[in-house]
Amino acid sequence: MINFTVGPVQMDKETRNLGKNQIPYFRTPEFSALMKENEKLLCNFFDAPEESRTVFMTGSGTASMEASVMNFFTPQDKVLVVNGGSFGHRLVELCQIFEVPFEEIKLDYGMSLTSEILSKYEAKGFTGFLLQLCETSTGVKYDMQLVGDFCKRNNCLLFVDAISGFLADEFSMKKYNVNIAITGSQKALSLPPSLSFIIMDKNAQEKCCSHKVKSMYFDLQDYLKNGERGQTPFTPAVGSLIQLNDKLKRIQKNGGIKSENQKYAQRAAYFRSKIIEEKLPFKNFINEKDCSNCVTALVHNNSSFNVYKIFETLKDEYNMWICPNGGDLKEKVFRVGHIGTISKKEIDKLIKAFKSLQKRGLL
Amino acid sequence: MINFTVGPVQMDKETRNLGKNQIPYFRTPEFSALMKENEKLLCNFFDAPEESRTVFMTGSGTASMEASVMNFFTPQDKVLVVNGGSFGHRLVELCQIFEVPFEEIKLDYGMSLTSEILSKYEAKGFTGFLLQLCETSTGVKYDMQLVGDFCKRNNCLLFVDAISGFLADEFSMKKYNVNIAITGSQKALSLPPSLSFIIMDKNAQEKCCSHKVKSMYFDLQDYLKNGERGQTPFTPAVGSLIQLNDKLKRIQKNGGIKSENQKYAQRAAYFRSKIIEEKLPFKNFINEKDCSNCVTALVHNNSSFNVYKIFETLKDEYNMWICPNGGDLKEKVFRVGHIGTISKKEIDKLIKAFKSLQKRGLL
Repeated sequence: MINFTVGPVQMDKETRNLGKNQIPYFRTPEFSALMKENEKLLCNFFDAPEESRTVFMTGSGTASMEASVMNFFTPQDKVLVVNGGSFGHRLVELCQIFEVPFEEIKLDYGMSLTSEILSKYEAKGFTGFLLQLCETSTGVKYDMQLVGDFCKRNNCLLFVDAISGFLADEFSMKKYNVNIAITGSQKALSLPPSLSFIIMDKNAQEKCCSHKVKSMYFDLQDYLKNGERGQTPFTPAVGSLIQLNDKLKRIQKNGGIKSENQKYAQRAAYFRSKIIEEKLPFKNFINEKDCSNCVTALVHNNSSFNVYKIFETLKDEYNMWICPNGGDLKEKVFRVGHIGTISKKEIDKLIKAFKSLQKRGLL
Repeated sequence: MINFTVGPVQMDKETRNLGKNQIPYFRTPEFSALMKENEKLLCNFFDAPEESRTVFMTGSGTASMEASVMNFFTPQDKVLVVNGGSFGHRLVELCQIFEVPFEEIKLDYGMSLTSEILSKYEAKGFTGFLLQLCETSTGVKYDMQLVGDFCKRNNCLLFVDAISGFLADEFSMKKYNVNIAITGSQKALSLPPSLSFIIMDKNAQEKCCSHKVKSMYFDLQDYLKNGERGQTPFTPAVGSLIQLNDKLKRIQKNGGIKSENQKYAQRAAYFRSKIIEEKLPFKNFINEKDCSNCVTALVHNNSSFNVYKIFETLKDEYNMWICPNGGDLKEKVFRVGHIGTISKKEIDKLIKAFKSLQKRGLL
């Protein structure tokens, strides 16, 4: 099977080979040293300010979203949440659960956040801002300069869910005044799913340490404290953390974050150009200028065509997974992921499969 | 390195080989079928009553402990918690966090729960009972018949943390009137750490569905609902779930739970007999009749000897990990785990290493 979903994605040979090793006992100085290195490299790759810290959560991206909402925001806050798809909606639900007062910027599926929209919220006493870097359900990448400037002017603690965008899209905590950013193991880092990471600057650490949360597993104060000695409060996904260490060091060796961003930009551009070149009956679901490099969301030119069937036929007859959408978009939009270890040859195979479906009258 | 800790433990060849495979996309009928099979096999191995369900949590054992306390108990309950070590203490802390009214049966480290102790709590209106099957910090296995009978008489919802005891020690939800039992992937199942499992009977499901928890990641109602179609609400540790499926099917094929229990009983007995046979200067930290098969906790005959040094020397000079204790017991007690893929030859090597330390005057 060739995997064009947005996670879990295809791992490279080095990561896969590590997957068959025995997993070491981890309450040792050796593992602590590896974890300190992981922390340093992740802080570097997020371009996090001095004294930033990384917390390693064993759990899906949602675990880190939940931990962030409960640790960095309180019922004394008033936050702004961008809801432009299913992941933005999840942030809204988390604010509801933890009784964080919020206003929601509800965007139609696939729409971007503009300065016009944002201007209405200027100087309204917001203390926090939560959004995705890339809203994975539609592929929209938000304008981080716009958001970062707003947060600086309005003195908002800025949380960015960069789960799918990290490595694929240009990002910098320093440049965009981001206080907290998260990502997951099974996205562009191309590791097994099981881990998510929370990178936080000094302000975020202080906010988190200023109140006690009603959770043991999501108590980030405890993670920060254990992290000082390179440990986690509970048994983490040790094997994946070793794969992470190997992967981060290879990224650094191969040109770092810049070279990763370029790779994904080229890959996304190649796929999108092929769709046009081969006259496939698809068009971008969103405006080209808003497209993240991590995924392309497509609709059929014939809007009544049920695109979920394309996912099923490719899976059952072509040994390929593209990424279906859930909810309202299930039959209207499908996605092709660009993260993970994907060769040009594999993209060509997908294009060929689309052409084959077209010839068979199935497109 | 040979690994005699209590987790992560040594994986077998089949599990390790699966670790190098690509990880499939999981929102498919194929993965749902595998998950339904996982659920059925785990329910079988826990000897769970009809209509029981299993929830798959991506997170450490503590994640499932926390999810259980918040989903199965409420501030309207009055529960009894056995605190005989660091894991029992964790249950106490969770009851405090989630404001579940409790009384604590505080046992000295290494002590067992007797009918005499328990008789004081008879007919006192308790609605729940929480304890470990095996208190991993000391190796004490509690008397489940005693506890199960108490819970039946007193109509208590019984939660058993069988994280380290499952497969190693005899256990049955039916026989011992257990409503909820949990375990983790990196214990006797010998899979990578990242997953824990919650098995619950019909009563526990009803209790859990009778109130809404303040969490998204630990909302077991959501897991139960998604589980009906063989899915999880959030991206799980897909790779480990595939390894779980393979492992459970192999356990079933090789004689099931009975044969697993026997294997661990023999292994523990062999190690313990060798300690005596070779006149090593150790004795059991706990009474023999209370010993779990999953781990042996040992103290030095000379009570002022710092046993943490044994852990360090074996790690640095003999390429072996035994399991140190934390907290108060750090320098007094060390543990040798019996779970995971450990051969007789490897146990002999450990005994030989102890003999070597003895010869060198380091024991």
